[in-house]
Amino acid sequence: MQRAAALVRRGCCPRTPGPWGRCQSSAAAEAPAVLKVRPERSRRERILTLESMNPQVKAVEYAVRGPIVLKAGEIELELQRGIKKPFTEVIRANIGDAQAMGQQPITFLRQVMALCTYPNLLDSPSFPEDAKRRARRILQACGGNSLGSYSASQGVNCIREDVAAYITRRDGGIPADPDNIYLTTGASDGITTILKILVSGGGKSRTGVMIPIPQYPLYSAVISELDAVQVNYYLDEENCWALNVEELRRALREARGHCDPKVLCIINPGNPTGQVQSRKCIEDVIHFAWEEKLFLLADEVYQDNVHSPDCSFHSFKKVLSEMGPEYSGNVELASFHSTSKGYMGECGYRGGYMEVINLHPEIKGQLVKLLSVRLCPPVSGQAAMDIVVNPPVPGEESFEQFTREKESVLSNLAKKAKLTEDLFNQVPGIHCNPLQGALYAFPRIFIPPKAVEAAQARDMAPDMFYCMKLLEETGICVVPGSGFGQREGTYHFRMTILPPVEKLKMVLQKVRDFHVQFLETYS
Amino acid sequence: MQRAAALVRRGCCPRTPGPWGRCQSSAAAEAPAVLKVRPERSRRERILTLESMNPQVKAVEYAVRGPIVLKAGEIELELQRGIKKPFTEVIRANIGDAQAMGQQPITFLRQVMALCTYPNLLDSPSFPEDAKRRARRILQACGGNSLGSYSASQGVNCIREDVAAYITRRDGGIPADPDNIYLTTGASDGITTILKILVSGGGKSRTGVMIPIPQYPLYSAVISELDAVQVNYYLDEENCWALNVEELRRALREARGHCDPKVLCIINPGNPTGQVQSRKCIEDVIHFAWEEKLFLLADEVYQDNVHSPDCSFHSFKKVLSEMGPEYSGNVELASFHSTSKGYMGECGYRGGYMEVINLHPEIKGQLVKLLSVRLCPPVSGQAAMDIVVNPPVPGEESFEQFTREKESVLSNLAKKAKLTEDLFNQVPGIHCNPLQGALYAFPRIFIPPKAVEAAQARDMAPDMFYCMKLLEETGICVVPGSGFGQREGTYHFRMTILPPVEKLKMVLQKVRDFHVQFLETYS
Repeated sequence: MQRAAALVRRGCCPRTPGPWGRCQSSAAAEAPAVLKVRPERSRRERILTLESMNPQVKAVEYAVRGPIVLKAGEIELELQRGIKKPFTEVIRANIGDAQAMGQQPITFLRQVMALCTYPNLLDSPSFPEDAKRRARRILQACGGNSLGSYSASQGVNCIREDVAAYITRRDGGIPADPDNIYLTTGASDGITTILKILVSGGGKSRTGVMIPIPQYPLYSAVISELDAVQVNYYLDEENCWALNVEELRRALREARGHCDPKVLCIINPGNPTGQVQSRKCIEDVIHFAWEEKLFLLADEVYQDNVHSPDCSFHSFKKVLSEMGPEYSGNVELASFHSTSKGYMGECGYRGGYMEVINLHPEIKGQLVKLLSVRLCPPVSGQAAMDIVVNPPVPGEESFEQFTREKESVLSNLAKKAKLTEDLFNQVPGIHCNPLQGALYAFPRIFIPPKAVEAAQARDMAPDMFYCMKLLEETGICVVPGSGFGQREGTYHFRMTILPPVEKLKMVLQKVRDFHVQFLETYS
Repeated sequence: MQRAAALVRRGCCPRTPGPWGRCQSSAAAEAPAVLKVRPERSRRERILTLESMNPQVKAVEYAVRGPIVLKAGEIELELQRGIKKPFTEVIRANIGDAQAMGQQPITFLRQVMALCTYPNLLDSPSFPEDAKRRARRILQACGGNSLGSYSASQGVNCIREDVAAYITRRDGGIPADPDNIYLTTGASDGITTILKILVSGGGKSRTGVMIPIPQYPLYSAVISELDAVQVNYYLDEENCWALNVEELRRALREARGHCDPKVLCIINPGNPTGQVQSRKCIEDVIHFAWEEKLFLLADEVYQDNVHSPDCSFHSFKKVLSEMGPEYSGNVELASFHSTSKGYMGECGYRGGYMEVINLHPEIKGQLVKLLSVRLCPPVSGQAAMDIVVNPPVPGEESFEQFTREKESVLSNLAKKAKLTEDLFNQVPGIHCNPLQGALYAFPRIFIPPKAVEAAQARDMAPDMFYCMKLLEETGICVVPGSGFGQREGTYHFRMTILPPVEKLKMVLQKVRDFHVQFLETYS
């Protein structure tokens, strides 16, 4: 249980001490600093200290909001206080937060939400009838016809029905059962819940959870928190970050010596890597999970974000269903979606769902029980999810405007994906795989040996050193690859492509100029 | 870690098998039943079974949405299908869900929320200026001026400032620091987060968490999930459910033999017990926590719900601050509030906050890190919390209507609290302490020995047996005392006082008639 000793020091700045990965030798060693701050009175020793706290929580790291983002906040405060910098604003390209980057909400979605929030508006002529129909239907399914009531722990019934209908349409008619749908507080909540119920054992029988490297750090954080074992499989950077079943096999074989691997997590389209898996690859993965008796977690929150005309999104559920009853009746699969990404970018509402199939009926009861302890996901987020899965259809009043807004977001993203790939690949020492899907570039950067030395002298991962310099010199905030995991000796960063086109061009040019300068300085 | 064997069988109906407390001998024993259901194909053994799942999750119980509520759902379906019952509707008095019981949302709150949701309405003349001011202020503090952006993990800055100002006003000028405020997804999320960070150790050094009995079962559920040790202290039913420090001392002394008690949880006003603690009692508890080095968790979500004219709400923060620097500078305290209770009853938005004082600076960093993994609480819930702590003030356009609506809810609750107490105490074999605060009655019921035998023959707790009969015969859904904990040999149930006055009268009369009949049947 005591894994404090295993705390790694990667990716951390010694001038931003704290919980983001810096190795803390002991709480006692830090105590005098606190006493120094408050010399006026002797403070009793606290109950909750770094030494006494939950060691699994201490072991958690989460780079997307880590030291680089704290630093960005500090710089913003300095700018506000009038301190001169070589730039006038911090650009937060560290997180997939579309509306914070200026993307406008989808009008129809917000209209329905406003009607649900303040039903007096149902009498207003300034709202379209199709929005009112949606709002009335949602409200009728809510206790007291109000978003202010708790919903069932699994989510509002009619919304789960709409999700099931959406999945059925998406998967070309393969049916989804509303009873297998669970509404969640964003996808993170669903992923955490499923992992929580799956994890068990101690010592060599601790549950192993296979995750891609690079990964989205929610996975490593939850695995730490649950005291499970992270089993890394590496995506193939030379091959557009493809998932290779041979590599899954290697990772599993090596893990079986020291833990009990039970779960295989897939992120498709990839975060941070942006690849879109082929149908064949998904089939291979499902066969592997079937063969090796692994529970599949398919993180499909970027299912609407496929930019490359050569790629299509194939859901794990659909492929599984088409592989015949031996698979479709046996492989346990949880698939996740949310309101945060896609074309709607409604991160703040924390809406999401998961579809869980082939779950043991007794486990289904356990899952609902676990969800019921937190009562229900935010009902406003559930309503937002409903609009995402039940948008205007041809013939409805709002269809045209909705389609225009949606297509505008998606075509812009496709344009920005191509722009980013092209521009990065023109810079010596940067290589960027095609951004087939999702919202990020994850370019590989060459860091000269002298810069690696300089970083090590500061007790920092080399790409953290690079990203800190980038932030300090240009105001651009990106996340070092070490926060997602990468092959030893390779360096990357993750940057969103969400800024508006002209701003994104400016960002890319600044990164290029910085990189060229960086290579010169450390050559 | 393996606590499956400790699964208790209290409070559970054998005809609703599942996760709510029924003792499951092994997954293997259940497997044939599954095969019987699907005889058409041989199903492979599943990966996730009762045997392989997280044993701590299996040990979780949550009575408020337990078997009685599942049964209520079944009965509702039967009524819909036209099956005749001695009643025409199920009355869900099991949960504090005001708006589901017909309470209308506070107009001002929903106006601000609608404006934030759909900012086009800021131009509409049908919304008051003070609501528009609030909405503009919230939106200006959001990324991209939108509720659809992620907020900081700790919550939107200006909302945390408003919470701090509210606490300062509430506590007669004792200042609160916005930096100590964390917005949460309802209070449950905050309580879970703080307990998660506090829990550590194995064997005899497992963290002990002191909770009142009767308790709100979130506490026992989270303690199970975190594999901590539940340390019960009993409230004094003979003395209006008072908290007695001698009893705290006894519980602590006995616990110290087998775990490491580090946390003391208080619910004030009490849930399910409805008592409001005196200032003197709070002082005693704080002194005890200081003396015994316990981290204090003060669940104060019913702070606006004090019905008895002889009682006042005193916050732990205020009393602590007034006890002098030895206490105010040392005792670690987390206090919780939410949008769900009070006069607003906005459960569905899942808004809440916690104020945490005297936290070690390094732990503060750890807490923010842990929160950041889930990105942020729902921003719409944060906005709802803002209106609760920043309502219209005298001179503002909406002040009068807001005050009228608020007072109407609160005076009605006070009336219903008195009505409930009086009526229950007229029934032979029911004793009900005064409902000084919160939203529930928790009457003690006499269950005759013959009924106890009948319950035991059905493998049910006697009060579960009673509540199931009440539900089946009257349609009234309440939660048995065994779900909250009670002294051995005593029986209770929890019922909300949220139905409108006339309906509540009808409910109380039905309970009375049922009880009299029950006593006759089993005498």
